[in-house]
Amino acid sequence: MSCIFCKIADAEIPAKVVYEDEYVLGFLDIKPINPGHTLVIPKNHFESLSDVSEETLARMASASKKIASVLKEALASKCEGINLHLADGKAAGQEVFHIHLHIIPRYTTDSFGLKFPPHYGKITTEEIDSVYRKLRNLLE
Amino acid sequence: MSCIFCKIADAEIPAKVVYEDEYVLGFLDIKPINPGHTLVIPKNHFESLSDVSEETLARMASASKKIASVLKEALASKCEGINLHLADGKAAGQEVFHIHLHIIPRYTTDSFGLKFPPHYGKITTEEIDSVYRKLRNLLE
Repeated sequence: MSCIFCKIADAEIPAKVVYEDEYVLGFLDIKPINPGHTLVIPKNHFESLSDVSEETLARMASASKKIASVLKEALASKCEGINLHLADGKAAGQEVFHIHLHIIPRYTTDSFGLKFPPHYGKITTEEIDSVYRKLRNLLE
Repeated sequence: MSCIFCKIADAEIPAKVVYEDEYVLGFLDIKPINPGHTLVIPKNHFESLSDVSEETLARMASASKKIASVLKEALASKCEGINLHLADGKAAGQEVFHIHLHIIPRYTTDSFGLKFPPHYGKITTEEIDSVYRKLRNLLE
C-alpha cells in the first residue's frame, strides 16, 4: 500500500493532525497556500468522488465546518474568508489520488484565487440547455 | 427578502434546476466556467460556513456527489474531472451571500484553475507550527 494519505491515516508517516474522528482526519497541508491550510481526508482509501460514499463525503464536509469554525481564531493574522476546494481527477488538479478536501484561509490581499478560462462568459445558451436537459433526465 | 438564491429556492425567479430534495437545490450557474457548472444551495437561507449547520453542509455535499456522478454522462464532451469549490466571505470570492457549492466540470485543456500566491512554497515552519498548536488546542 503506497498511498501517502493512507500512511498518514495509519500514522505510518507523520503529519500535523489537527482533527480526527472515527471516519476522517484533518491535517495541515505541507505546502500551504496560506498558513492554516488544512486537508480533510477519509481514513479509508477512496480515490475520487465516484468512489467515496455520500456518507463519507458528508462527514468530510462536517469536519471541514468544525475546522473552519476555529481557523480564524487560530490564525494570529485572522483570516477574512475561507475556500473549500476539492479536485477530482488529474484534469481538475488532483495530485494525490486519495480524495481530500482543502480548507484554505483567505485574505483580500493574498493574490490566491481562480484563474478563469478565456471562454468564461461566452458559453452559448444552446450548450447550457443541452446539458440541462440531460442532467434533468439523469437526476429525475 | 432580497436574496436571489432564496428567490430561486422559492421558485419566485426561474433557474435551470437539475436536482432537488427536502433540504437542498441544485441549478445551473448562469455564468458557467464550463457547461454543466452547477450550484448547490440549501433551501433555507444561510449566509456562510459559520451560519450553516453541519447537517445542511453535509446534505449539500451528498447532493454534489449525486450531481457529479451523472455530469460526465450529461456532457456530450464528457468531462475529465470535477472541482467542488465553495467561497466563504468576500475575501474568498463569495459574491452571493447565500452559501453555495460550485460543481465545475473540468478538462485538461480548459485553462481554468487555481492562481497561486507569490508566497506559495515560502511559508515558514514557524508560521505553520504556530497555527498548528492553536488549531490542536481549539479542536481538542
